[in-house]
Order: sequence, then C-alpha cells, then structure tokens
Amino acid sequence: MSTFLAEFLGTALLILLGNGVVANVSLNKSKGKDGGWIVIATGWALAVAIPVYIFGPISGAHFNPAVTLANASIGNFAWADVPMYIIAQMLGAILGACLVYLHYLPHWKETDDKGAKLGCFATGPAIESTTGNFISEFLGTFVLVFALLGIGNTVMVDGLSPIVVGLVIWVIGLTLGGPTGYAINPARDLGPRIAHAFLPIPNKGDSNWKYAWIPVVAPICGGIVAALIFNLIF
Amino acid sequence: MSTFLAEFLGTALLILLGNGVVANVSLNKSKGKDGGWIVIATGWALAVAIPVYIFGPISGAHFNPAVTLANASIGNFAWADVPMYIIAQMLGAILGACLVYLHYLPHWKETDDKGAKLGCFATGPAIESTTGNFISEFLGTFVLVFALLGIGNTVMVDGLSPIVVGLVIWVIGLTLGGPTGYAINPARDLGPRIAHAFLPIPNKGDSNWKYAWIPVVAPICGGIVAALIFNLIF
Amino acid sequence: MSTFLAEFLGTALLILLGNGVVANVSLNKSKGKDGGWIVIATGWALAVAIPVYIFGPISGAHFNPAVTLANASIGNFAWADVPMYIIAQMLGAILGACLVYLHYLPHWKETDDKGAKLGCFATGPAIESTTGNFISEFLGTFVLVFALLGIGNTVMVDGLSPIVVGLVIWVIGLTLGGPTGYAINPARDLGPRIAHAFLPIPNKGDSNWKYAWIPVVAPICGGIVAALIFNLIF
Amino acid sequence: MSTFLAEFLGTALLILLGNGVVANVSLNKSKGKDGGWIVIATGWALAVAIPVYIFGPISGAHFNPAVTLANASIGNFAWADVPMYIIAQMLGAILGACLVYLHYLPHWKETDDKGAKLGCFATGPAIESTTGNFISEFLGTFVLVFALLGIGNTVMVDGLSPIVVGLVIWVIGLTLGGPTGYAINPARDLGPRIAHAFLPIPNKGDSNWKYAWIPVVAPICGGIVAALIFNLIF
Repeated sequence: MSTFLAEFLGTALLILLGNGVVANVSLNKSKGKDGGWIVIATGWALAVAIPVYIFGPISGAHFNPAVTLANASIGNFAWADVPMYIIAQMLGAILGACLVYLHYLPHWKETDDKGAKLGCFATGPAIESTTGNFISEFLGTFVLVFALLGIGNTVMVDGLSPIVVGLVIWVIGLTLGGPTGYAINPARDLGPRIAHAFLPIPNKGDSNWKYAWIPVVAPICGGIVAALIFNLIF
Repeated sequence: MSTFLAEFLGTALLILLGNGVVANVSLNKSKGKDGGWIVIATGWALAVAIPVYIFGPISGAHFNPAVTLANASIGNFAWADVPMYIIAQMLGAILGACLVYLHYLPHWKETDDKGAKLGCFATGPAIESTTGNFISEFLGTFVLVFALLGIGNTVMVDGLSPIVVGLVIWVIGLTLGGPTGYAINPARDLGPRIAHAFLPIPNKGDSNWKYAWIPVVAPICGGIVAALIFNLIF
Repeated sequence: MSTFLAEFLGTALLILLGNGVVANVSLNKSKGKDGGWIVIATGWALAVAIPVYIFGPISGAHFNPAVTLANASIGNFAWADVPMYIIAQMLGAILGACLVYLHYLPHWKETDDKGAKLGCFATGPAIESTTGNFISEFLGTFVLVFALLGIGNTVMVDGLSPIVVGLVIWVIGLTLGGPTGYAINPARDLGPRIAHAFLPIPNKGDSNWKYAWIPVVAPICGGIVAALIFNLIF
Repeated sequence: MSTFLAEFLGTALLILLGNGVVANVSLNKSKGKDGGWIVIATGWALAVAIPVYIFGPISGAHFNPAVTLANASIGNFAWADVPMYIIAQMLGAILGACLVYLHYLPHWKETDDKGAKLGCFATGPAIESTTGNFISEFLGTFVLVFALLGIGNTVMVDGLSPIVVGLVIWVIGLTLGGPTGYAINPARDLGPRIAHAFLPIPNKGDSNWKYAWIPVVAPICGGIVAALIFNLIF
C-alpha cells in the first residue's frame, strides 16, 4: 500500500469514528444521545489510536496537515511529500464524513437542530471570538504536536505507542476541547465541512464558512510553532 | 481444551458480561440504572477483551460468526472448522443470555418496559429503516474486521493485543453504536434473542423476529467485504 | 515485608480507595456526588490495580478471602497460610474503612440518608432476594476467579498484569454490579461492615447484619467452584 | 534541556491540561460544561501522564514539591536540588494557569459564579473544616507518594510507567477527590492561586487565601510521612 492510500484510508476511518461519536451523542433518537463529554472525548481518542495501529507502519499516521507541516518544518518529513499527504488527508476526511452521513442515515430527518447536524461534520466555537477561538485552536494543536514529538522521543515496547497517541488526543479533548470543539486538524474540519455542503442532508443549515479559516490556519500555526520550539529545546 | 469448548465458553462469558451491562443500565432498581452510554460501551469493550485473554491462545477468540467467516473467506481459517465454530458461538451466546437472566433474576418483574427487557438480550434499531439499519450493521462490522486484521498485522509485546481488541470494540460502540446498538456479531444478537423467546421472563414482549435477520446478514456481509478489501490492499 | 503485612496494607489501600469512591459519589456535598456508575466502577478497578502493583510481588495480592480459598482449593496456595492471609485481609479492610471515615470526616453529618452512609462501608442488594442476591455474588466471584486464573496463564510483559487485573474488576462492576453492588470479596464487605458498626458516624443506621452472610458465603462458593472448573478444563 | 526547564515546562503543561479540564466542565458555554466527575478525574490523570512521557527522562517528572521533598527526605533526591525544583514547579504552575486563562478567554465574562472561576485555578473544600480538609489532603498525598514509590520499585517494560502514574492520579481523583478537590501538590494549588490573584479575570472574587496553606502544608506532610513509612517497610 502506498503512503498516499494509507493517509487517505486512515483519515477516512478517523473521521468516520470521530465524527461518528459526535453524531451518536447529538442526533435525535441515537442510542448514545446526550452521552456527554466523556463519550465524545473517549470516542475521538480511539478514533485516532485505531487507525494509527492499522496505517502507522506505512505512512507514519499523520492524518493531519498540521502534523505533516510541523514535521516538515523541522526536517522530520520531506517537503516534497507534503502536498500528496495533505491531499490524501483531505480526500479521506471527505470520504469519512460521507460514511458518517450513511451510518446515521435515518437520524438526519429526525433532528431539527441545524447546528447539531453541522456539528456532526465541522467544529464551531462555543462563543464566537476570533482572537479567543484562534488561541484555543493554536494552543490545542501546540500541545498535540509537542506531545507527539515528545512521545516519538520515548523508548517504548512494540505496540504501545498508538495507545499513547490516543491518550494525547483524549487529554486534549477532555481539557482543551471546551471553547472550540478541538479541531486541531485542518483536514478534520475542512473535509467534513465540504461534505456537509454537498451532502443531501434533510433540512440542513449553512456550513458556517466564515468560521472555517480558524480551524485551518490556527492548527497549522500552532503545530509549526510547537515543532520549532520542541526542536530548539530538546 | 478443544477449540470448540473455548469458543463456547468464551462467547458465553462475552454475552454474560456484554448483555449484563445492558441489563445493569436498563433494568429498574439496578444500581447501574441510567449509567449512560459510556457504561454500555466500556462494558462491552471489556466483555470482549477479558475472554480474549482467557480463550484467545486456544481458539483465536473469534466469538463471532462474522469474524470466523471473514477469516475463512481470505484463507486465514479453515472452512472445515467454520460450522463447528459457529455452533459453539451460538450455543455459548444462548448460555450467556441465560446467565444474564439468572444474574438479574429479581429485576425482571420490577421492569415494566418490554423493550428494555428485550434490549438486555437482542439489539434493535433506534429508528426502523431496513436500508439504514443494514448499512449501520454492515459498516460497524466492516470496521471491526478491518481493524482486527490490521491489529493482527502489528508487532506487539506479549499480553497487549487483547487490550487493543477491546479498544476496537470500545470505539465502535462509542462512535457507531447509535443507530442499531451495534450487534456486529450474528451470535451476539441471535443467541440471546432465542434465549429471550424461551426464558420465563415475567411479562415479556415478543422477540422482534422481523428485525432478527439484519444483525445476522449485515455483519456477515460487512465482515467478508472488509476481509476481502483488507487482503487486496495490504 | 512479610506476606501478612503486604496483604494487610494492600487490602487497607484497596478499601480506602474502593469504599472512598462510593463515599465520593454518595455523600452530600462531596465534589464527586452523583458522579454515576462509571465513576464507581472505574474507581474500584483502579482501587484493586494500584495495590496489586505495590504489594503483588510480595504476597501475590489476593486481598480477598475468596481468592485465597479458591487458590488453595486447587493447590495453588498453601492451606497452612490461608488463616493468616484471611486475618490480614479482614484487619486491612477494617483499617481501610476507618481511613474512609477519616477522609470524608466532615461529610457524614451532612448526609441524612442512612442507607447511603452504610453503602460507603458494606454492600447491599438493589432488591432483597436471598436466591437472587446469592446467585449474583456467586456469579460475580466466579467470573473474577476464573478470569484471574486465565490471566495468570497468559504470557505478559513485565508490569502489564496489574492493569489487566484492574480490567477484570472494571468489567465485573460495569456489567454484573447492578443487583448487589458486587462485593465479590468477603473481606471487602464484612470488614467495613464491622467498622460501620463501631465507628462514631453521626446519625447512622444499623449495619444490616441479616444480609451480611451473603457477600461472605456466596463469593467463597463462587470462587472455589470457578477454580475447580478452571482446573478441570485448562 | 536542563532539569529546571523540564520541571518548569512539565508543570506548566500539567496545569494547562489539569486546570483546563476544570474550566471545561465549570465555565458557562464551554462544550464540556457539566461533563461530570469522570471528565475531571480522567483529565487530571492524563494531564500528569503526558508530561511524564515528555519530561520524565530529563528531570524525573516530579512536577510537585511534595514529591520532591518526599524523595529528598529518604535520600532518593539531592537536597541541594530541592529549591531549584520547587521554584521551577511554582513558576511552571503560574505559567500553566495563565495559559488556561488564555485558552478559555471568552468564557470568563460569560460565567457569573465567582467560585467556579476560582475553581479553575485553585482548589477549595467541599465543606470548610480545617481538620477534615487537612486530613484529606494529607491522605491523598500519602497515597500518591506511597504508590509512586511502589511503582518505582516495579519492573516494567519501556514506556509503560507513565501510564501507571496516570492511573494513580486517576484513582486518587475518583476516590479521594471529593472533600477538597485533591490538590495533593502545593505548586498545583498555590501557583494558579497566585495567577488568579493577578490575572484580569472579569468580575472575579477573592482568591480564598485563608484556605491556601492547607493544600501546601498537608501535601508536604503527607508526602514525607508516606516516604518515611515506605522506606521503613520496603
């Protein structure tokens, strides 16, 4: 399997599972409705860890343009492969969002809340604030990339590190997810937002495009700054 | 111990624990009543992981006809052993359901909701939709088999892999369990449904036989398709 | 350190933590009040796992007369050491319960519910039923001992097995804890019940002695039967 | 990287994540609002485990003056390095609290409850009681240090021990966190309390300085006593 295919399929699985947990707790009549933040955060943690097990040995399991760019910016990853990785991640994220749509097919028309339906695709701010939301996505991704690089430095027995990657996602969601829903990944947010725009979701609202740049730009900045600082001090 | 006995006992333990957690959160006066989706999903994850520890070295710990058929379809498992495995899984699932009935013995007559009582045995759709429910069980089992095969490819230290199998069940429940309650296993659904039909549960309703084919057929299809695709690309 | 001291201190720590979590979710004004079943079950799982890390290498970390007797009944443990182990476990459980009393000192007089206060010490049935409650404690301890013996048979890297022991406690609590609150350990129930009887808890009720024999006798029977069956088939 | 920098950054990350989870469940409009005790306890557990992965190999990952003093008191750590470690921990805790303030920037003015806002920085008692609160912080830190020393004695494969450290924090939070919110670390409480005093939080209340000595003195006493007893019996 090519690294392109691994990033594509891994990101698709990540989004199917991760956006799936949002659908499970948000959509009317879903059995996990109102399951709470612990369900969201645990679901996302494992939504990352499982694809890392499956595809990590092939592509390094970035699944995230901010991680790819951060690694490239400190010489951990070839710049020449960056565009291909990001395209694979974006296409995978769109496919994953389409699978969430299919998996929860009967639930869309039972759900009136347009914001809840959009939330199964893209993130949105708890309180609109360009500065505040940018800081939150910047800091969340800073922690993500810094921790991933730190873990990459750690001696670990075979098969343990995907779990630790999952723990990083778990803690970011639990502790830093409150203000923006922790996109911390441009593909995770933009790909499903595109899918929301074109999928035939009954009675859907707009895709909140005016917010869309924040979960793209802030994670990229936060990730690159984290990598540069990590590289400087370790 | 024979592989037959291992599959029989392992599936019985899986169902005692897995259906037990549904009983714990659903039945009136149970101490875990209304414990929420995190209790359900965590309970099922461990309900699989613990029997994998105990019986995995003997039988490979399928506990699931969809897993057995998927493995057989790509040459990972002898077709000649398939019938014996499926019979063991079905009988084990029936035994496990009887043990759940015994374990929660005083609670059945305290619970009026016939759907809640059936839910301690078999799964049911959140919204009835043949297409939608089939897709959900197909996709859930696709992810299960694809992830199990991916994990089987991973180099792991001794004693870690049953935990990772549990993480796969955890994430499927958390993220994809909403529409149908994630049977993703024909024995897990059909065995306890048979037990529901013959056990002397006070004031029970019907066993919803018209839905019963979906959690049998869709998981088998999803599992086989996942195995074929996995085999093609890895 | 002697094995006696290890069983004594390990059981004391187990009860401080395990009964502590019940106090946290049950006592008025406690910050974990109404934290739900996931808090209870996760707390108990770790309440066992952490003492297993600390004291396991010295005494084998039974912390439970049912486990000690089950091991002795299949020749895994010397009968001559059984009385000393059980005495250590009982004294440790009483000490642990006294520490819970101290740790939650200001909360007892803020809590009116006498049942809630007793519940921070001893278990009680959700529905009174001698047969039903006996079956539940029998089955819960059967699963405990069977799984512990199965895990003991598993090849595992250093440092992993206490986590797996914790997973066994976790799943029993989540799935089988509903009818009786899963004592599954005579020392865990009787020791704190004795402490409840003598501690100066403000406005406490009786210690429900008529139920006390079930979480002593049923776990012992369930554990021994599990060990005998395990020994027969493995 | 110096050990000073590792303790400084590790404690900053610990407080960003740990105090972040309190903000997530406490501040109005945060997406994790009312997420419950399981979110708090799981968040704090991982808030410790992840910095242990990153900085443990450099400084030993104390992040806590009580742990530093306890180790020094039994000869595990040089007294000469104690002041530098404690200064790094205190400065890191203050930085971490400032980052929480920034991360949840738009939420402070949406939250009226002054106690909730203080709770995102420093701990406070569920019921005011000098004796009771002191005992709780003493016992919580006793368990922390005793367990950390026990785990330090355990043979473990590479990469597992930070998870086990996280499990210790998890269980303390779940089971012993109810009466005081488990500071169990002078820097974790005093550093953010200082930050609360100087940060421009809209409509903030006082920083409850009269309680501030308990989560400083009690953890130091509990930690040192635990280390001395551990050293005596192991």
